Amino acid sequence: MKAKREALQSLFTAMRDGKVDGDIIDLLLLINSIKGIYTTSSCSGRIGIIEEPALGAKPLSRWLIKVHRPIEFEEAKEALKNAKEGIIFLKSQPPIFHVVAEDLEKARKLHELGLASGFKYTTFKVISKRYLVEINATEYLTAPLGRDGRVLVDDGYLRFAVEIGNEMLRRSKGRLPRLEENFRRLREELGTDELFYELVEEYKIRENWELP
Amino acid sequence: MKAKREALQSLFTAMRDGKVDGDIIDLLLLINSIKGIYTTSSCSGRIGIIEEPALGAKPLSRWLIKVHRPIEFEEAKEALKNAKEGIIFLKSQPPIFHVVAEDLEKARKLHELGLASGFKYTTFKVISKRYLVEINATEYLTAPLGRDGRVLVDDGYLRFAVEIGNEMLRRSKGRLPRLEENFRRLREELGTDELFYELVEEYKIRENWELP
Repeated sequence: MKAKREALQSLFTAMRDGKVDGDIIDLLLLINSIKGIYTTSSCSGRIGIIEEPALGAKPLSRWLIKVHRPIEFEEAKEALKNAKEGIIFLKSQPPIFHVVAEDLEKARKLHELGLASGFKYTTFKVISKRYLVEINATEYLTAPLGRDGRVLVDDGYLRFAVEIGNEMLRRSKGRLPRLEENFRRLREELGTDELFYELVEEYKIRENWELP
Repeated sequence: MKAKREALQSLFTAMRDGKVDGDIIDLLLLINSIKGIYTTSSCSGRIGIIEEPALGAKPLSRWLIKVHRPIEFEEAKEALKNAKEGIIFLKSQPPIFHVVAEDLEKARKLHELGLASGFKYTTFKVISKRYLVEINATEYLTAPLGRDGRVLVDDGYLRFAVEIGNEMLRRSKGRLPRLEENFRRLREELGTDELFYELVEEYKIRENWELP
């Protein structure tokens, strides 16, 4: 799989550059060690405050703060001081994994695995020469906080919204161990991938990470 | 298709009982008149205020108000008076269509059609004996407003949040004409379904609706 080689190369490069969410590196290594499947873009779940110049203008949006763990009220409050223009949102988003399978049968297994791990919004995003499964959940918070630098909520509300967002994040991240366990079983079923271990050596992955 | 017969029977019964969102009846009739595809649960896009007893406890949640058009500030404010227990959210959700295709080729066409109509979150939800495509968009607002009967936002914020939610709803509903146009083209390509017209007569659909 030429595509898997390229995907692993960019994953390992991103890991080396500190651009991969630390709390899912083990899981990403596990998934990619399985024969016939590999990950593309993934996120370990996050919460933050974002400014969007206009509704739907995502490419131009700007994070004022973004963390992959629960956020502190003080951090959120501090970040809001940097608001300038656009609609300000507090956003909480669950972990999301894009996993490619080389055939339909494996794609179905991934789909079932995601659902069985509690990721209720697991779907097939592409079905063509390759099969792309998105493992996703439903805990999305999108709470507007103000506009054009003007914050329209008080501290009491901000505390409350941050608490709800954190709770959603904890809830969705809480499913990661089950997901990992299920991928471990899948590896037993599908076997390991030589290509993965070959590139692990080439990129000296073992120097910094323990293989799952 | 036995499944399509059953789906049409329940759609026509729901229409007769006034349980189908009025602004998408034309579109649902159009889609179901196409050979080899049919709709299951669909929603024309909505905004409202909901109480959820706990995070993720959707089955036990309760709408205080829910409309399929932009909501008025006064309606929202009035509805909040009935809040009792659980987390109160203002939610805005785009139109969503579940369309079943009898084979993979048609499912792919549906998927492309959804994406091409601006519904960026169109995915395959089931791929087995039947193919279920979800035509969905990204305009989701989930803004917490308070908890256990206590509203934690002032009128200024409520006005603002309602405005954002309405704008998202208008934006997503604004794609319905394009979606309809694309389904019209698909019908030219795939042809019409005799079963649909047979049941239209049986349920006397023409007495109350004009066929698209």
